[in-house]
Amino acid sequence: AQMSLEQGYEARREYDARYRLLLRSVHDPIIFASASDGTISDLNEPAASILGGTRESLVGQGLAAEFDDCDRAEMMDRLMDAAGSDTERSLKMTARRSGREVELSAQMFRAAGERSLLCRLNARADSLETPAGLA
Amino acid sequence: AQMSLEQGYEARREYDARYRLLLRSVHDPIIFASASDGTISDLNEPAASILGGTRESLVGQGLAAEFDDCDRAEMMDRLMDAAGSDTERSLKMTARRSGREVELSAQMFRAAGERSLLCRLNARADSLETPAGLA
Repeated sequence: AQMSLEQGYEARREYDARYRLLLRSVHDPIIFASASDGTISDLNEPAASILGGTRESLVGQGLAAEFDDCDRAEMMDRLMDAAGSDTERSLKMTARRSGREVELSAQMFRAAGERSLLCRLNARADSLETPAGLA
Repeated sequence: AQMSLEQGYEARREYDARYRLLLRSVHDPIIFASASDGTISDLNEPAASILGGTRESLVGQGLAAEFDDCDRAEMMDRLMDAAGSDTERSLKMTARRSGREVELSAQMFRAAGERSLLCRLNARADSLETPAGLA
């Protein structure tokens, strides 16, 4: 039992370390949220930047509250629909803090007895064109 | 002790699930490798595609063997140098199976008593221009 406790601890630290470094390293804007109450459990810098906040200010916040005209229950329903669909579907939303238009896609997974969502943000083309307009 | 065993197990499954889904979801081509012997421990589809193989055929292979003119010890030294540098440095290599020119950057992390590398591949511009040439 001691052996398996230690092995479990080591394996957890391995995935924990891989997960944290991977989330920090990738350019894709990623948000993890609880599927039950919509709370943001983790996100990376690219996602925080698009939403217009810091990682620290966003973890623990409700995902729906970060978008304009967005009812929590309705948003969770739409995200779960998108996550359950065979084809890649996304929600078009406006980020409240930054005003940026984004597309939000989601995948559901189950871990530790809870359903969670991995959400990918895509800043929409019209929203991305702004820097080019400066040239 | 039973409680902490269960909590450890649940936490491990949580990170395991997050890690696997995240690696599968991102567009960045990512390879995890052992820092001691250079074996590929995991990689995603975008990375496998650039290397010119399947995930299944690449996991467990030596990373250096997937590149032209690449000595294992020398490659690991160069990757560790790049990982230890403050500025983002990358190695210019040619993928053996696909012939594609890539830039390889690395970050080192320590987990479960072992040093591992997270490597990010970037297909080089000249290598990416090929599809446009077809138009």
